[in-house]
Amino acid sequence: MWFETNLTKLLNINYPIIQAGMAGGPTTPELIATVSNSGGLGTLGAGYMSPEEIKEAIHKIQTLTNKPFAVNLFIPEDVLVEDQKVLKIHNTLQSFYDELGIEQPVLPKTWGPSFELQMKVIIEEKVPVFSYTFGSLDHKWVEQLKANGTKIVGTATTVKEAKLLEEMNVDAIVAQGSEAGGHRGTFACKAEDAMIGTMALVPQVVDAVNIPVIAAGGIMDGRGLLGSLSLGASGVQMGTAFLTTKESGANQLYKNTLIEATEEDTIVTIKFSGKAARGLKNEYTERLKDLPDNEVPSYPIQNSLTQPLRKEAAKQGKAKWLSMWAGQGLRLTQVEGAEQVIRRVMDQASNTLNLLKND
Amino acid sequence: MWFETNLTKLLNINYPIIQAGMAGGPTTPELIATVSNSGGLGTLGAGYMSPEEIKEAIHKIQTLTNKPFAVNLFIPEDVLVEDQKVLKIHNTLQSFYDELGIEQPVLPKTWGPSFELQMKVIIEEKVPVFSYTFGSLDHKWVEQLKANGTKIVGTATTVKEAKLLEEMNVDAIVAQGSEAGGHRGTFACKAEDAMIGTMALVPQVVDAVNIPVIAAGGIMDGRGLLGSLSLGASGVQMGTAFLTTKESGANQLYKNTLIEATEEDTIVTIKFSGKAARGLKNEYTERLKDLPDNEVPSYPIQNSLTQPLRKEAAKQGKAKWLSMWAGQGLRLTQVEGAEQVIRRVMDQASNTLNLLKND
Repeated sequence: MWFETNLTKLLNINYPIIQAGMAGGPTTPELIATVSNSGGLGTLGAGYMSPEEIKEAIHKIQTLTNKPFAVNLFIPEDVLVEDQKVLKIHNTLQSFYDELGIEQPVLPKTWGPSFELQMKVIIEEKVPVFSYTFGSLDHKWVEQLKANGTKIVGTATTVKEAKLLEEMNVDAIVAQGSEAGGHRGTFACKAEDAMIGTMALVPQVVDAVNIPVIAAGGIMDGRGLLGSLSLGASGVQMGTAFLTTKESGANQLYKNTLIEATEEDTIVTIKFSGKAARGLKNEYTERLKDLPDNEVPSYPIQNSLTQPLRKEAAKQGKAKWLSMWAGQGLRLTQVEGAEQVIRRVMDQASNTLNLLKND
Repeated sequence: MWFETNLTKLLNINYPIIQAGMAGGPTTPELIATVSNSGGLGTLGAGYMSPEEIKEAIHKIQTLTNKPFAVNLFIPEDVLVEDQKVLKIHNTLQSFYDELGIEQPVLPKTWGPSFELQMKVIIEEKVPVFSYTFGSLDHKWVEQLKANGTKIVGTATTVKEAKLLEEMNVDAIVAQGSEAGGHRGTFACKAEDAMIGTMALVPQVVDAVNIPVIAAGGIMDGRGLLGSLSLGASGVQMGTAFLTTKESGANQLYKNTLIEATEEDTIVTIKFSGKAARGLKNEYTERLKDLPDNEVPSYPIQNSLTQPLRKEAAKQGKAKWLSMWAGQGLRLTQVEGAEQVIRRVMDQASNTLNLLKND
């Protein structure tokens, strides 16, 4: 069948559809298990989770499905605390904290969970698929993952990055086009130099590597799936399309805003986390628009500095201070279950292919 | 057959491939006629041409083909000369002129050819297809074109723009994704807010209008054509893929630079013309990178101010001062004839479709 590709064989799944590992809450065990039970590959977005939380989530997923699933982590970079910058942004953010009526916390001592300890859980639990973003995975991890039979998926935003990942021995590559929501996976150049649209990126990556390529960015339905396979991809990764499902853990305010948004409503900004990411424009992004990027502390410092703000905003129901990651296919969001997403995408792709065949 | 769409019927062509109307030299009568004779639709990029030049080119094309072809024009905007800005940019550009050893001309008195007179030629010559960029076509022209049986194609970069074009009674719409080379067709918002990737833009535009949609941006081969049809488009417009053909009038220096470039080598800049356009990075774009956009005179003023510089740079063989428009599919450029481009694209699309069918 047209949907059986080297990716479905590699990952042992029925349909070439991966639900993206969106960190920060959307990827509940229910969402992941539903996607996997429906024939796709669910992914736990575990970047911000503690090792214990990851372990617990994996066990929960395993009670809900016996199908393959993935866990996604961020490769950490060296944290460079520039006191001057931090002081300055602290002052800038104060007005936002004031408006929410909460105190701005002092600078945290640690910058999120230990990658080393997160990886230990991935290894111990022998997860079926491990995917990662933001760069190079140390060779020792690659060896241990391979020994476990875990399939490894890296993320590239340029041809050069795809080649680097292939050299690192990953099993498949997500080619993340500029349409994609959330953090840019760019690691071998500046993010602004790697804003290549999916239509242009996918065939160029396919030509450059000998492993399956997964198209990502702006893919929302069966037309996007068939379009991606036409470009030479072996499957697709979809994030925004799963954010509005009933199983998604994204908060209701975020979901409602996504449903009403259009393709003109997103922006790529480093102002939330210190790393370039595509999300919905709101008062936060507008008010910080003129703040030069070089005055923003790097990831994960800026992320830590704005996290309490975003948490409180969610609690108070104020979308204007939230980071609401989203891709550019926003008019195509639907309110439905994750199983329906998979079925709708597969049906539409089949029908579209039949139309092309019979024409 | 799969390649017969409502667009091929509308335009009376064999294959759903339009060669983009790239202004400034690339679209020679030989290129246009070869594309049309090969079953696609050639387009004269006439934006910068005088009425007499347009008439002459049309007559030349007609001696080379009896197939349909298109002429593309820019819809003019009101010219707002801000003396302070002009004086300042004049000073900034002086060093470039100095390095080329020519004198910087005083500000021209007119800003390119008269649109009214250009349009009169289009009407008189009863061209088969008229395509345009940058906004609204006055109703009087729409009426005269329709009376002549000329098909009208507009350019949109957002869903909102596509709807506006449909209301203006165009016959088909180019959905120009962010990957596209050359000027952004954006007219209903800021160009920076309309950088929607082709993969996301096309299906959203298709859903919003009831006329044929032509995908543009990053499409370089048969995979891009089949991908675009999968997304719901009725055809594609390709620019960069035709720039390097032997019939293209792009100068050899520009062609050579395109052949060697990659997807990371382009930038969207207003520094050449005053309007956002995607082209190759070079010393000109790098040295003016930090010049704020609001210090650049608007189109067509900036275009006139930099034109002598670019002309002289071409003469001296210095790519570093040239505007070299290009899309993001650069690794897929080929040196071949335009007929081969059409044949290669069609063959690859057919083969790709057969692979999907038989899988």
